[in-house]
Amino acid sequence: MYLRARTLPNFSFLTTAPIFIALLALSSVAQAQGVTNKRPNVVIMIADNLGFGDVSAYNIGTRGGMRTPNIDKLAADGLQMTQFLVEATCTASRAALMTGRYSVRTGLSWFADAEPNRLQAEEYTLGELFGDAGYTTAYVGKWHLGRSLQSQPQNQGFDEWRVGFFSSSDPVLYPDTMAEFGAPPELQDAARSWIVEADGPGASRKLNQYDSEYRMQIEADIAGASVEIISQLSVEDDPFFMVIGWTRPHYPNTVGSDFAGKSGVGQYSDSVVELDYRVGEVLNGLRESGIEDDTIVVFASDNGPTTSTGSPSELYAGDTGPFRGELGDPYEGSLRTPAIIRWPGQVEARMSNQMIAIHDFLPTFASMLGRELPTERPIDGIDQFDFLLANAAKSSREHLLTFLGDRLVAVRWRQWRMYPVEFSHASGNPSAGGYQSVVRELVYPQVFNIEADPKEQVNLSSHVGGWVLWPYDELIQAYKTSIEKHPNPPAVNMTVIKSE
Amino acid sequence: MYLRARTLPNFSFLTTAPIFIALLALSSVAQAQGVTNKRPNVVIMIADNLGFGDVSAYNIGTRGGMRTPNIDKLAADGLQMTQFLVEATCTASRAALMTGRYSVRTGLSWFADAEPNRLQAEEYTLGELFGDAGYTTAYVGKWHLGRSLQSQPQNQGFDEWRVGFFSSSDPVLYPDTMAEFGAPPELQDAARSWIVEADGPGASRKLNQYDSEYRMQIEADIAGASVEIISQLSVEDDPFFMVIGWTRPHYPNTVGSDFAGKSGVGQYSDSVVELDYRVGEVLNGLRESGIEDDTIVVFASDNGPTTSTGSPSELYAGDTGPFRGELGDPYEGSLRTPAIIRWPGQVEARMSNQMIAIHDFLPTFASMLGRELPTERPIDGIDQFDFLLANAAKSSREHLLTFLGDRLVAVRWRQWRMYPVEFSHASGNPSAGGYQSVVRELVYPQVFNIEADPKEQVNLSSHVGGWVLWPYDELIQAYKTSIEKHPNPPAVNMTVIKSE
Repeated sequence: MYLRARTLPNFSFLTTAPIFIALLALSSVAQAQGVTNKRPNVVIMIADNLGFGDVSAYNIGTRGGMRTPNIDKLAADGLQMTQFLVEATCTASRAALMTGRYSVRTGLSWFADAEPNRLQAEEYTLGELFGDAGYTTAYVGKWHLGRSLQSQPQNQGFDEWRVGFFSSSDPVLYPDTMAEFGAPPELQDAARSWIVEADGPGASRKLNQYDSEYRMQIEADIAGASVEIISQLSVEDDPFFMVIGWTRPHYPNTVGSDFAGKSGVGQYSDSVVELDYRVGEVLNGLRESGIEDDTIVVFASDNGPTTSTGSPSELYAGDTGPFRGELGDPYEGSLRTPAIIRWPGQVEARMSNQMIAIHDFLPTFASMLGRELPTERPIDGIDQFDFLLANAAKSSREHLLTFLGDRLVAVRWRQWRMYPVEFSHASGNPSAGGYQSVVRELVYPQVFNIEADPKEQVNLSSHVGGWVLWPYDELIQAYKTSIEKHPNPPAVNMTVIKSE
Repeated sequence: MYLRARTLPNFSFLTTAPIFIALLALSSVAQAQGVTNKRPNVVIMIADNLGFGDVSAYNIGTRGGMRTPNIDKLAADGLQMTQFLVEATCTASRAALMTGRYSVRTGLSWFADAEPNRLQAEEYTLGELFGDAGYTTAYVGKWHLGRSLQSQPQNQGFDEWRVGFFSSSDPVLYPDTMAEFGAPPELQDAARSWIVEADGPGASRKLNQYDSEYRMQIEADIAGASVEIISQLSVEDDPFFMVIGWTRPHYPNTVGSDFAGKSGVGQYSDSVVELDYRVGEVLNGLRESGIEDDTIVVFASDNGPTTSTGSPSELYAGDTGPFRGELGDPYEGSLRTPAIIRWPGQVEARMSNQMIAIHDFLPTFASMLGRELPTERPIDGIDQFDFLLANAAKSSREHLLTFLGDRLVAVRWRQWRMYPVEFSHASGNPSAGGYQSVVRELVYPQVFNIEADPKEQVNLSSHVGGWVLWPYDELIQAYKTSIEKHPNPPAVNMTVIKSE
């Protein structure tokens, strides 16, 4: 087994030397016990808007001939989580991954915009955690946590950034649609998206344009750059930490001729098939570099699919499994995604419905590395080393709050989902939910049992409200207390605009 | 491998002697080729209203700690079908299973009522097929194909009937609710349901009442009787064919103290846990009788769950997986159920999304047994021996029609689902769909792609109607031609009542 560095005495924040001395002292003991302290490489892959049912390991193959063999194999070889919870938008979820904190605490509970709604210099990220522990670090692909200098990955703990872009994949559609409807040329220019890269702190370099043409090439380039980095770093003494921000199946999901028609269920799923293929390339890279057994691979999605709200050609193509909702709303189809951890010889292959949140990776890896996290700020992630990496049966998580903008929009406690507001489809043809939802006020919170009623069809507030609303209230009070002590930055807000 | 008797020359209907002579002649050849003609026992178990997502093998464990280990094991050891289609009500689906014909052809496309809407003497059933092939036959549990003498299992090819009842489990609620609201005593008496049994043709014997108390005992008795029959017949020379009509999770789902609270997700799923346990008892019975390897086990459900329409205490407790609809409507949640075939050493353990219908068992087993089916009537089932029992990759089925009453309500062709009418929730609080639906007329058929859009959210009629409606029309025309030649009996009809 892997001996968690955290079993060492605690050290103060950002001190690494005492840990390595202690590790050296412990290593002979560990070897005598048949355990190892060789630190594993860690590769975290984040799919973009991949729904719970979008891969065959999670939909038991009900979508015709559409298969995701590489992700399925990863699931079969690792811990396949069926209750992995995220935040409701790309930016929010990635902020939670990087900082271990609710996105509302970092001003990133909607999307990365002007100050202060960008990843701030003083945030402590996964990149910094691994870097401080002596890892070489790399980021490949989509970032979406702000384009200001301080917010970029190379200034947030990652030694390099390849095939990078700042926001999302939808801007590849902007120039054409702007031209089609006669937007001013200077706005068209400003809307162009670019691929960038960086080596070490400072500015990034602008490379090619991320346009409709490059949309079909980018996933191959992200995989290629990742494999190249793996190949280079696999021969170094230090272990490495890499995050791969895939672009698929975020709209638009145009694919090249290698993948067009491959799923048999439309372009969106063709794009998922490409994602699966690229994931396979990276996994092959690990194998061919001889470090498969020494590398923890995490595969997850940042949030559920856009179903009513993506490109019109992709209407309801994303699959949320049995759940309602989609990217941008606080429902289970938005918040529950596929998630897998593979660590050969350490993490037992199994399926688990224990509750895990994307916020948990930071404290979990801190625990693995024997690193202390900053104590002067609230960290909402929970140390899940025992469950995620050491085969414990139970997760340590019992609740999760969900924010959109500055508003608390969902409270999870055990199997209960509680909502202070209701999200509903907006007018239009087609009418749309997700991030196009309207919010309807409630007088009484809604309560659903997500295990007994996966589609959330029966509001139980009148049946169980009397007792389920106690923990609901406690969680809200605890959050309120935390923001009294640590006020949140102003949230992005483009809808409640007052004149005073 | 098992050598299908059908590879013999064809014989005329209901002649058995030439087949056995031919089998004897072939047996030395078969043995020389390493194949066997020893005829397997066949046990078909039909769950009652079990939804696609109700067992953990079909919902990847998303319902908390709720597990169905016996059914999951059966699925892991056999052919787990993820696109097994049935008819929309208990009676209709069981009629289709028994006769291989669309229920509308037997007058059973709604429920078994007065003549002619009962299983008629001249129908050729699975029981008769196996009996004619020299099998001992037995039926245990729920029948639901009519209470007239000619309709009962012992007069439809089954040598015995144990723990039988004629209709369904909801009548156990009638006496109490009738008393509560003051129904006339003679009506209360008439509404009582009874457990019956029979040995050979003729009348059945009335045993105990099937009431609310016995509801909690019946599944144990069905399992017990089945195991007893298995034990007795396992030592006979002839192979046997048995159908087990389970009662769970049809409402009401009250369970005894052994199962109350066992699922953690409510009484409905506690009932599914009992079903799983009883299935396990029968599978153990096969093992302990030493005939596990010589027995084909089929597990399926007659139709999807009641979600908006069952007992109020079970509201939305049944799980249709990603699909909409429920028992009684023509949607996928009504028509697609779990289905598994296990035949150790013959059927390869695998999961398949090929299209299979409950109608296919009759011709498939006829093929296995080398029996001809009646040719003077339309049989809608398709011989699926190659796919179901001989590991072919592809099903032979490309379409399925669905009827309710005398009305064609859905046409399936490949991945397309087409509807001449729309089923919608009726008024009420709660409003209800399923068999409480209202039917809304359409001018243009609705078209959905069930593989690309499992929730059937995007009506594609304007996009693909031009070509998908050709096979739709062809299928309708072929059906119309068949009923010109073989008119259907009048369908049950309690809603369109005219005075002329």
